[in-house]
Amino acid sequence: MSRPAAPPVPTADLLDALTGAIPRDRLLDEPSERWAYGYDNSGRQTLPGLVVMAAGVDDVAAAVTTCARLGVPVTVRGRGTGTAGGAVPEDGGLVISLEGMNRVLSVDPDNRVAVVEAGATNADVQRAAGEHGFFWPPDPTSAEYCTVGGNLACNSAGPRAVKYGTPRENTLGLRAVTGTGAVIRTGCYTTKGVVGYDLTRLLIGSEGTLAVIVEATLKLTPMPESVATLRAVYADMDSAARAVSRLMAQPEVPRTLEFMDGQAIELVRDYGDADLPADAGAMLIIEADGPAARIDGAVEALEKAARNEGLRDIRAAVDPGEIRALWASRKALSPALRKVAPRKINEDVVVPVSRMADLVARLRDIADRWGIRIVSFGHAGNGNLHVNLLGDPADERQARGMERGLADVFDAVLDLGGTLSGEHGIGWEKRNYVGLEIEPASLALMRG
Amino acid sequence: MSRPAAPPVPTADLLDALTGAIPRDRLLDEPSERWAYGYDNSGRQTLPGLVVMAAGVDDVAAAVTTCARLGVPVTVRGRGTGTAGGAVPEDGGLVISLEGMNRVLSVDPDNRVAVVEAGATNADVQRAAGEHGFFWPPDPTSAEYCTVGGNLACNSAGPRAVKYGTPRENTLGLRAVTGTGAVIRTGCYTTKGVVGYDLTRLLIGSEGTLAVIVEATLKLTPMPESVATLRAVYADMDSAARAVSRLMAQPEVPRTLEFMDGQAIELVRDYGDADLPADAGAMLIIEADGPAARIDGAVEALEKAARNEGLRDIRAAVDPGEIRALWASRKALSPALRKVAPRKINEDVVVPVSRMADLVARLRDIADRWGIRIVSFGHAGNGNLHVNLLGDPADERQARGMERGLADVFDAVLDLGGTLSGEHGIGWEKRNYVGLEIEPASLALMRG
Repeated sequence: MSRPAAPPVPTADLLDALTGAIPRDRLLDEPSERWAYGYDNSGRQTLPGLVVMAAGVDDVAAAVTTCARLGVPVTVRGRGTGTAGGAVPEDGGLVISLEGMNRVLSVDPDNRVAVVEAGATNADVQRAAGEHGFFWPPDPTSAEYCTVGGNLACNSAGPRAVKYGTPRENTLGLRAVTGTGAVIRTGCYTTKGVVGYDLTRLLIGSEGTLAVIVEATLKLTPMPESVATLRAVYADMDSAARAVSRLMAQPEVPRTLEFMDGQAIELVRDYGDADLPADAGAMLIIEADGPAARIDGAVEALEKAARNEGLRDIRAAVDPGEIRALWASRKALSPALRKVAPRKINEDVVVPVSRMADLVARLRDIADRWGIRIVSFGHAGNGNLHVNLLGDPADERQARGMERGLADVFDAVLDLGGTLSGEHGIGWEKRNYVGLEIEPASLALMRG
Repeated sequence: MSRPAAPPVPTADLLDALTGAIPRDRLLDEPSERWAYGYDNSGRQTLPGLVVMAAGVDDVAAAVTTCARLGVPVTVRGRGTGTAGGAVPEDGGLVISLEGMNRVLSVDPDNRVAVVEAGATNADVQRAAGEHGFFWPPDPTSAEYCTVGGNLACNSAGPRAVKYGTPRENTLGLRAVTGTGAVIRTGCYTTKGVVGYDLTRLLIGSEGTLAVIVEATLKLTPMPESVATLRAVYADMDSAARAVSRLMAQPEVPRTLEFMDGQAIELVRDYGDADLPADAGAMLIIEADGPAARIDGAVEALEKAARNEGLRDIRAAVDPGEIRALWASRKALSPALRKVAPRKINEDVVVPVSRMADLVARLRDIADRWGIRIVSFGHAGNGNLHVNLLGDPADERQARGMERGLADVFDAVLDLGGTLSGEHGIGWEKRNYVGLEIEPASLALMRG
């Protein structure tokens, strides 16, 4: 990694510098406690010098100001569900945990707005909004645990983005602490506004590198009256990928359009009682939503678009238990992958929807060429696939195959007009690849 | 104005500096030609030192690079339809006109994407997308003349934003020339992507102060199968404003939700043969869109929400001629206003939808207090009203009333949790008011 090493400041000195500004019981200096805040879902781990359990914006501002003065790197952490290492601190750096700043401050149904602290979980926000008949569209698979702040930092969207957009399309304003410790407000409380630069969207997706988001004004959407779930099984990945392009080229936008390849189906056949087919090459989970009186028409349009000569079976999951089981199997995929191979490289690429079939064909070739296993699934309606390269790093051939395969995956994605990350972010994991996608002039501007 | 005066560079020297880099026939130095590029729809006018009729990104880069070296201020211009003076150059500065860069480079229906040059008009893009069954949601009233580049620079949205969002929600990527003359690409070709900072949205709405947008990758939306238009007439502004809040608090999102106060209706009664009522206090134009089989249900839901004790008449405009006439009257409003008073101050404020009734009440009080006429209309579904203060500047009492009334309007808007501009931008017109809305720390960050 090319980030310059910070001069290590001893934990005791960090503690001294912050004592007075932040109550002692919100500063964790015991190594056992610090270790607990040194990793995330990427599997990386380091030992931070100190952890601040922020209780409010003042704690965040005090921590950032002090660290700026001492030259100590700061890492912000929600619940550590990220897979790219964005919440893993620098060795000896400071971690600001926002898990205590978890209040839903207000839900205003008349204006379709909720104001929440960054440490509130996505599920908490959904529950609070749901009481008023609304939801916040972003719903990463980890919604039950991940924080809104983390969703915003990575612009993490989840399956519903295909119809409702990502956090960037669903956030009106932010309160944040800049790198110098200044507290700013961005955006507004209304759905339109062009006064000043769009700092809201600039901070969303910046992975905590520009400012610490402490509060967000979220745009809510009315809960649809009804939702219908279709399960379409295909003979092969190619047929499913072609169906995806066709589904997205017709006017009835699905609420979700999830893809699983045959290996992914095998992996989770035993989770969630979803009764998945044994010999399927690929599967789509397609959802429609809208007023009850019109849902049948929507389902009909989606069924029609999903049909091609590779379709083996399509059926509507009607009873709630069946739908829950289907999604439970989808959500079980990431954890299940951990069990099948000692090492997993988890990528999160995006290609134009019309190139989905090309991408899955190239992934198959890459797996064959390097003798590795590649399992793909994800938010196909946005062309966003989670591509998992599996292998045993102790086996030298496989280890090399995974590295070479990964480079080939990135080449294929850029070649097809895609982008390296749809929602997981860059973090530590993809730092070395950013230059492949973003040209030097743009990177220079971002650094500035 | 507080912008520091640039050292004036004589036209001949500017011409010399650019000759060689840009063909002579694309450099306008005749005063008569320069005057034509010195004003926009704000009514302001200055004389630029030179005009570059850019034919491509190289012309833009050459012009910007040269001006950066000479310290000459650059103003970018589409078709000059803006009302805030954003296209009015500095005295003696350089104007880059993008009207020649007006090609629709590609329409890709499979990926719902169009790539266009910044000087293409909004209407050209709609026509090109329409051939494939798609549209680009932003549609300012001046769509026939205004350019996509101008729409992006100001984040100008128009009536459909209430359902489909503003340019920020409908643009995937940009090609732009930075202040140093570097050519950058931002964003991507896909609907998801989190690699690097969101420069796309940062440039959108920055009114040309950060970079010159030369090309845009636009996200297209399938044209709905059918559209239904309702005209709801109310006894008073308050009833109409309350209906707006109620319409926005139910799940069926209207495609457009336009408001006209009684004076606005009077002004355009004779335009477009729309047969507008004579004694109406206010009117809403409400549109639904969607699949043909479902449009009746949508209309029913909207009608129900629009009803309150102040509703005088609601009816569906069915035949295309009637619908066209209704919109023609709405579009005639801005030009009609020019005729009724020697001076018009045209503001473009936004408040939370639930505060619309409070805003119209405060506008009425302000008009009474200062003895001026205020005509309001606009995109009520976003809480976005175009507020016009009318009067005769030669009449000292009216002139003072307009200035004081304007200050009161801004106070009212901010007091109600709103923002000073929904889509027209700041330009020269609102420079002195930005500090009212944006706190010093955020402004400092934007300046940086």
